[in-house]
Amino acid sequence: MRIGIVGLGLMGGSIAAALKPHHLIHAFDIDPRAATFALAKGIIDHRAETPEALFAACDVIYLCLYPRAVAAFFEQHVGALRPGTICVDIAGVKAAIIDGIRAHLRKDTQFVFSHPVAGREKIGVAFADPNIFKGANYIVVPTPENTPEALETVSSLAREMGFGNVTDLSAEEHDAIIAYTSQLTHVISLSIVDSDDGQFDTGRFIGDSYRDLTRIAMINAPLWSELFLENKKNLLSRIDAFRTSLDAFEAMLRNDDLDGLQQKMTEAKRRRSLLEKGK
Amino acid sequence: MRIGIVGLGLMGGSIAAALKPHHLIHAFDIDPRAATFALAKGIIDHRAETPEALFAACDVIYLCLYPRAVAAFFEQHVGALRPGTICVDIAGVKAAIIDGIRAHLRKDTQFVFSHPVAGREKIGVAFADPNIFKGANYIVVPTPENTPEALETVSSLAREMGFGNVTDLSAEEHDAIIAYTSQLTHVISLSIVDSDDGQFDTGRFIGDSYRDLTRIAMINAPLWSELFLENKKNLLSRIDAFRTSLDAFEAMLRNDDLDGLQQKMTEAKRRRSLLEKGK
Repeated sequence: MRIGIVGLGLMGGSIAAALKPHHLIHAFDIDPRAATFALAKGIIDHRAETPEALFAACDVIYLCLYPRAVAAFFEQHVGALRPGTICVDIAGVKAAIIDGIRAHLRKDTQFVFSHPVAGREKIGVAFADPNIFKGANYIVVPTPENTPEALETVSSLAREMGFGNVTDLSAEEHDAIIAYTSQLTHVISLSIVDSDDGQFDTGRFIGDSYRDLTRIAMINAPLWSELFLENKKNLLSRIDAFRTSLDAFEAMLRNDDLDGLQQKMTEAKRRRSLLEKGK
Repeated sequence: MRIGIVGLGLMGGSIAAALKPHHLIHAFDIDPRAATFALAKGIIDHRAETPEALFAACDVIYLCLYPRAVAAFFEQHVGALRPGTICVDIAGVKAAIIDGIRAHLRKDTQFVFSHPVAGREKIGVAFADPNIFKGANYIVVPTPENTPEALETVSSLAREMGFGNVTDLSAEEHDAIIAYTSQLTHVISLSIVDSDDGQFDTGRFIGDSYRDLTRIAMINAPLWSELFLENKKNLLSRIDAFRTSLDAFEAMLRNDDLDGLQQKMTEAKRRRSLLEKGK
């Protein structure tokens, strides 16, 4: 297939690299250096000079843009799509994106909303790496306007990229569970780093637990501030639930409740161990 | 040197394996299968039948026991130490351990309190791995009773094991910073898993951020419940500080404060990136 990538950052670049072996990859980025770099590295086959040139050349187009930019970009360029084209978004929030796109949909093209649950705490195509998709989770959010064929194309491209699980969810379900697994974990990681009182040379006293819990604090701030705000209601509710759990551990600690702590730890261990059985 | 290991779990086994190339390793564990396994795997040279037999044969003895067991074990067996022997503990809390040991110290032997800030979310000698020490942090907590020679021996053995930084701290300093880098991160990880409402098949919707933040929830409950309680005051204060940071992020989210969020994220990213410059 002829695959188009709009936005050659870490994700766009990784998708390009993952599909390159079996497809022809066209790419457009507002920064021409990104596509030039990707071309030189063999991650893409063609650099499009304009979105219109890319749209004219591709069967499936991945819009790898910041959440708030997706709808505006689509509205501006939807007229240039050829009939039968499938557009795919990859944003980490779904209801807000779908709301923004819906008014601009064309009946003779398809828009499939999806979320590859993978990434790295790096910015830019120079860090593109198709290995981040290996065995990872991919979520597709079908809409009533989608044809089964378009959905199947996007799911099967995800499997080609290396994703292990491809799951359909509604937009509401997606935003509810992702607020927990993704946005909450980022708020927490940032809060851990933020709560360092600076009294010590912290780097000399950390182990892998601190490293692992704070790695994602090396965050893409413009991207994640949008992801937080576009999923605000769910994220606030997950912060509340987390705080309730934290309070419960704190109360046991305050009460010297050794048995209670052990029980709660053992239960958390059991649940976490079950999550990726066999992985 | 003749090195003794009391308690052949993950940490005792890893220390044995790390020192084995250049030292003679004796080990004792209440479960004879642990030492038999380690002997068969070539992690140790000799299996001691009793603590007394081990004490009689070694120059430096690592007590790799749960925090609350260290003092009791030491009190019971201190009489069997040969003059000049150095005992070393490796617990993740220090003031409580030192308080427990101090009354039983012998003038003709040394007890060096230390904390290798390394580990894995696994239990038992079968998971022993000297690689977990590579480039890691090691803390030594000198007491007025320690000779410079004993402290230097323990620090240089830590470097031999592969540790990158060996730093001296007071017990109070150790417990303050470790409550933040280690015990707090474990409470948080457990709370994330605990706050899963079970509405979704969570494993299909997680990425590396969730995996990394919850890996240490696969916890050794008996060990960590003791570590929490033995450092309760510091841990409670670090939970408070963390909650303050979380509240600040939450308030910005509630107020749709995009600029504030980006600023706070950028600052956390800067601080986290500085932590391990060049690592």
